[in-house]
Amino acid sequence: MSKEITSRADDYSQWYNDLIIKGQLADYSAVRGCMVIKPLGYALWENMRDVLDKKFKDTGHVNAYFPLFVPKSLFEAEEKNAEGFAKECAVVTHYRLKNDPNNKGKLIVDPEAKLEEELVVRPTSEAIIWNTYKTWIQSYRDLPLLINQWANVVRWEMRTRLFLRTAEFLWQEGHTAHATKEEAITETKQMIDVYAHFAEYYMAMPVIRGVKSASERFAGAEDTYTIEALMQDGKALQAGTSHFLGQNFAKAFDVTFVNKENKPEHVWATSWGVSTRLIGALVMAHSDDDGLILPPRLAPMQVVIVPIYKGDEQKAMIDEKVNALMAQLRQGGIRVKYDDNDNTRPGWKFAEYEMKGVPVRITFGARDLENNLVEVARRDTKEKNSVSLDGLAETIITLLEDVQNNMFNKAKAYQQSHITEVNSWEEFEKVLEEKGGFISAHWDGTPESEEEIKQKTKATIRCIPIDNKQEDGVCVLSGKPSKERVLFARAY
Amino acid sequence: MSKEITSRADDYSQWYNDLIIKGQLADYSAVRGCMVIKPLGYALWENMRDVLDKKFKDTGHVNAYFPLFVPKSLFEAEEKNAEGFAKECAVVTHYRLKNDPNNKGKLIVDPEAKLEEELVVRPTSEAIIWNTYKTWIQSYRDLPLLINQWANVVRWEMRTRLFLRTAEFLWQEGHTAHATKEEAITETKQMIDVYAHFAEYYMAMPVIRGVKSASERFAGAEDTYTIEALMQDGKALQAGTSHFLGQNFAKAFDVTFVNKENKPEHVWATSWGVSTRLIGALVMAHSDDDGLILPPRLAPMQVVIVPIYKGDEQKAMIDEKVNALMAQLRQGGIRVKYDDNDNTRPGWKFAEYEMKGVPVRITFGARDLENNLVEVARRDTKEKNSVSLDGLAETIITLLEDVQNNMFNKAKAYQQSHITEVNSWEEFEKVLEEKGGFISAHWDGTPESEEEIKQKTKATIRCIPIDNKQEDGVCVLSGKPSKERVLFARAY
Repeated sequence: MSKEITSRADDYSQWYNDLIIKGQLADYSAVRGCMVIKPLGYALWENMRDVLDKKFKDTGHVNAYFPLFVPKSLFEAEEKNAEGFAKECAVVTHYRLKNDPNNKGKLIVDPEAKLEEELVVRPTSEAIIWNTYKTWIQSYRDLPLLINQWANVVRWEMRTRLFLRTAEFLWQEGHTAHATKEEAITETKQMIDVYAHFAEYYMAMPVIRGVKSASERFAGAEDTYTIEALMQDGKALQAGTSHFLGQNFAKAFDVTFVNKENKPEHVWATSWGVSTRLIGALVMAHSDDDGLILPPRLAPMQVVIVPIYKGDEQKAMIDEKVNALMAQLRQGGIRVKYDDNDNTRPGWKFAEYEMKGVPVRITFGARDLENNLVEVARRDTKEKNSVSLDGLAETIITLLEDVQNNMFNKAKAYQQSHITEVNSWEEFEKVLEEKGGFISAHWDGTPESEEEIKQKTKATIRCIPIDNKQEDGVCVLSGKPSKERVLFARAY
Repeated sequence: MSKEITSRADDYSQWYNDLIIKGQLADYSAVRGCMVIKPLGYALWENMRDVLDKKFKDTGHVNAYFPLFVPKSLFEAEEKNAEGFAKECAVVTHYRLKNDPNNKGKLIVDPEAKLEEELVVRPTSEAIIWNTYKTWIQSYRDLPLLINQWANVVRWEMRTRLFLRTAEFLWQEGHTAHATKEEAITETKQMIDVYAHFAEYYMAMPVIRGVKSASERFAGAEDTYTIEALMQDGKALQAGTSHFLGQNFAKAFDVTFVNKENKPEHVWATSWGVSTRLIGALVMAHSDDDGLILPPRLAPMQVVIVPIYKGDEQKAMIDEKVNALMAQLRQGGIRVKYDDNDNTRPGWKFAEYEMKGVPVRITFGARDLENNLVEVARRDTKEKNSVSLDGLAETIITLLEDVQNNMFNKAKAYQQSHITEVNSWEEFEKVLEEKGGFISAHWDGTPESEEEIKQKTKATIRCIPIDNKQEDGVCVLSGKPSKERVLFARAY
């Protein structure tokens, strides 16, 4: 176990921070609640972005870019949305600084440069986008409009955590416009499926798809679909959401289209997003006390090669074999690095790449090579094996697949063993305290019971799973009748 | 000539706006000075970004992300930089809105949520980045630090123009840290060369590389390298800059490293950037009165195929041949679209794709096909030719190369014929008024003469070309001695 990282058993929260900082994914900044995404963290985000971007384009979406600022009068147009975000808005009130007459070399806000109308830094872009769509949509021929935006947004959070909750974060937000309710709902569901596939296939992170309760919905939505992941400490994490917005924004911004029968109708809307929060989820879902464990499909560096040798002759012999292997791996699309920096010892390198979560490490030792062998270590299980040089590239490519699948299976087994059905309040509290994870329990469907459970336990309804089994029961809290179980958990 | 677009001869400025709006590259927004980048404009930006990003990575840089906001106390640390940008800063002063007690459903800025220290929305990121580098750099082993950021920035401009000058724009900003002055200067020059290659090879836009005069330097730089392009109306456009920052930011933020001799030294810095302004340059450098002309290497759609037929039988025959061609073109990496939408007529499509600047259009007409021929039209020269179906994919790929080269050559010829040497003030004014373009003239090297020329003519020194010929002469304005000619022009 690495000396530098707090163990999960000692302090899960500190372990997470240690991983982010010492794994060099991000750093704190001079701006309250904002972080710096360091090169390794950003490379991870680039890989996520590229995969998601392709999925969006494959499902017919195009990218565009809308202004960072939202005039206050537009922001407040959709009242529920405005109310939901008002308390966390950074507001631009002035457009100029000037020299401080009382303090040479310092600047003050120029009181004469006060904006007539304040600008909200976008916490989400429905308002500015729907105000724009008003001019783009006239007829059913202009629909559907399938647009995505990659952007930064700002939500002023009082308690922040690297990646999981920061004042500024990077995300994508899809905003689509449709002629019919059915089509908009289909889009909403399609995008939650896109996110689920991304989480499971690329992040190796199993998720539960479901619908949020009314209290947990996105402000301004008719329905919010979610994917919920489970972290190793038994807490849930909302990893992506897709909202059916009904005609709320169309009505707030008066966006209508002339249908095929030549009659005006309000447009139907969806929005959906995932953010750099996913990096926090990825870290917490898989990593261990020695550092990050990154899934091969997203790892910026998939394979690292470390030489062990004495003298130039051995080094030259190793270099030749490594270069041949690297050429083969790169041809197979593998991201590989050869670390032959001789300022650091192999042992230090091993610890460093374990910390950074590189899925596979290959050690080229001069002695092993006499027997045509190298040592291959996989990060997920920490297994090491002597492997023949013959067909090594194929062995490694297969191993990367195996690591990816194993990471998913391990997380899936953990998730499955942490969905617990409970049938009484006593059991609910006991499972929540002693085991954690998702609690599958009957709920009477009222916001009052939901709120009381939250107040008593900090557990919230994570979702009502899609295709949920219908069964008669009674609410664990109120004892009132219920038709289905929902999933509760404490969450990030 | 298209009826919808103002001609260049009538009103160059309106022509430009028409192209941007009707070519669907961008739209005005509800936010003063901010624009919406529409899908076609954004696709162009994505192509530019991908090429540049690869060039940055190939030259050893990595991407990261720094906060949008800069606390005022950091912003003012490097005084020249702060002074240069103070007048155009959007300032966040509050972090919450609340319900307006006097106006139900409306929001007001909550006076109790005033920030202790105002936050500047980054107009450029030197301050926040160098404040961060302070904690990242201790030893010469931490250098060089070669980081780039893709981001949005805000500069409050009084007069804005789509793409060319907007309050918010997208850009990349490289920020590098070096152990020696020489290395930093080499980096500065390397990056202006990267930009020049990008402009010429991808944008087909010839540029002149040079150094800015002291008055035109980036605020806080020791030297600013620039690439200067020439638009069709004879005005210059600064297309990219790379700054040697000396130790100014290292001193302002106290960033030192221990050198190999174990002594502390201030770090040497560069920064360099290009922005969505390049899209404006691309449009103005090449397009004509019928619409956009996009260079094949960056065009989101490189080839469009339009069928002309009567009845299902002809259509089926055309489809078969088109699908075969598209498969071949796509295999060759060509971005191609088949527009067989039967709601619009071929003539309408021709005008539409001309407007959007698609480099090559292929018309599959049922009658021509009987003779194994299709019609191929190139956007740049508007030439049309009947071309054999045999080997058509190769013909098209070669033609795209030819269009790219022809666009560059045409722009290069225009540029070359618009660099005029003048030797008297009378000549200077006459050439500026009657011909435009770059004026190569002797200047006495003083900011006073530079300013007077600017006041009299609106022409500024665009640059002192790299490897400029040294020759004795006298300043066109003052008659004082001069050792070299510099390039003047009116500019965007």
